[in-house]
Amino acid sequence: MTDTADTHDLATERKQRAESWFRELRDDICAAFERLEDELSGENAERLADTPPGRFERRTWRRQDPEVEEPGGGTMSIMHGRVFEKVGVNISTVQGRFSEGFAKEIPGAEADPTFWASGISLVAHMRSPHVPAVHMNTRHIVTATSWFGGGSDLNPSREDEADTRDFHAAMQAACDAHDPGYYPRFKAWADDYFFIKHRGEARGVGGIFYDYLDSGDWEADFAFTRDVGKAFLDIYPTLVRRHMHKPWTEADRQHQLFRRGRYVEFNLLYDRGTRFGLQTGGNPEAILMSLPPLAGWP
Amino acid sequence: MTDTADTHDLATERKQRAESWFRELRDDICAAFERLEDELSGENAERLADTPPGRFERRTWRRQDPEVEEPGGGTMSIMHGRVFEKVGVNISTVQGRFSEGFAKEIPGAEADPTFWASGISLVAHMRSPHVPAVHMNTRHIVTATSWFGGGSDLNPSREDEADTRDFHAAMQAACDAHDPGYYPRFKAWADDYFFIKHRGEARGVGGIFYDYLDSGDWEADFAFTRDVGKAFLDIYPTLVRRHMHKPWTEADRQHQLFRRGRYVEFNLLYDRGTRFGLQTGGNPEAILMSLPPLAGWP
Repeated sequence: MTDTADTHDLATERKQRAESWFRELRDDICAAFERLEDELSGENAERLADTPPGRFERRTWRRQDPEVEEPGGGTMSIMHGRVFEKVGVNISTVQGRFSEGFAKEIPGAEADPTFWASGISLVAHMRSPHVPAVHMNTRHIVTATSWFGGGSDLNPSREDEADTRDFHAAMQAACDAHDPGYYPRFKAWADDYFFIKHRGEARGVGGIFYDYLDSGDWEADFAFTRDVGKAFLDIYPTLVRRHMHKPWTEADRQHQLFRRGRYVEFNLLYDRGTRFGLQTGGNPEAILMSLPPLAGWP
Repeated sequence: MTDTADTHDLATERKQRAESWFRELRDDICAAFERLEDELSGENAERLADTPPGRFERRTWRRQDPEVEEPGGGTMSIMHGRVFEKVGVNISTVQGRFSEGFAKEIPGAEADPTFWASGISLVAHMRSPHVPAVHMNTRHIVTATSWFGGGSDLNPSREDEADTRDFHAAMQAACDAHDPGYYPRFKAWADDYFFIKHRGEARGVGGIFYDYLDSGDWEADFAFTRDVGKAFLDIYPTLVRRHMHKPWTEADRQHQLFRRGRYVEFNLLYDRGTRFGLQTGGNPEAILMSLPPLAGWP
């Protein structure tokens, strides 16, 4: 009895710590992004004189699931600003039972299909075509087993070699502090995952992607996942500041809109979370918050 | 021998007649749409003074298939104009072998997976939010059996009751001339097919959708398919003329962009042709010509 109670307490405590971390990271990211909104000055601020510096708006949603007493839900934070044309930061904590078909694909779910999942998911589409769009997501899933997953990838309209180098260096540093094998594996996974097959081209310049991370040391895996979030929080505002005051042309903007079209194609055709969420009755507003405010196809 | 030769000649002749019809319809539609470009005058023409009346540009593509001697191909006709912000009219005639998995889903393909397919496919995204977007497609497929399929549906930014009524009346007239059961069946099929499940909303105001049409009278089925094309060619320019000179506001335009976002969601998540084409190595430029020049998500 004592053993079971301890195990239960430990499991509950870990869930709470993971959930708290995603919330804390959300708060820090939103604060950092609002500071960037305040920092914009010069020509790019003047041409948006009618648009005040952006502030996040929050909307809470509850998951609908008659089979579960506490199905959970999430909070969407969304900002339409001067630097961030549209940025969404979702946190959610949900629990339920996987459908029979889906359970087969999930570690530990075939015997017991109940799951608990908590995570943060972020997509930023920027006004300036010189500032890269970005995606970051980390999550913790608990079935009969448990694991962490996530990653971050950079999606510039036109590649800037220094940005690519610095973004990858930040992700590599977060990885290397935990396991020298992580970065090569997780970079290759991102290259493989963020690929638009029918176009034969990468979605962006990559980053890292990992899933089913369960090294046997929960504390180490959680610490790594926190470090991925912190690395993102450090490097992305640096890249935004580097470019956000540069002027751009109508041709730059048009190219950015076409690249966003590719982003839409990836998200609706290939993104696992998007397709799974929509097909299992998730909240479409939250799932599709990743879609750009404006996108084009020539 | 004579019988086989006659059957062969008849099959060849029918393919040629279907293919010729789709090409003829394409030519008539392109000519009608270019006339609409020339007719635009007044305020809506003035604000596009830098954009000349649109003209279709054609691009031919060949299907890649090492297993087939004549894999076929198609011709994309695309126009970016003053009335038509982007309109694509594809005709294609292809032949090959269905993959094993796909053959199971196709009438007559399980025994013999060879197919021949010819068709026309059209999507128009209009500059004016008052002019409805539209889709029309008709096709003839030959396996061990053969059939016709197609339809047309109207996608206004905001519904105009007279447009909905007149568009449906045109489709109904085409149907009723052949079989009084066609319109109710094919209208219901369109309502079911052009539905964005995850949003719980229709893509547009419907029209007709039919597939696997093989009444046993090839001539009658071909005549019906021609009449669907002619009905479209008659009613759609009527609706365009009805609205193309009206002024619109920025709010109208914004709403149109969001409705186009829904159109993108449908095409990438649900459209059979799009998903099948992309997953079987079709020409992505031709398949995705249906995507709007600009679309938004709030």
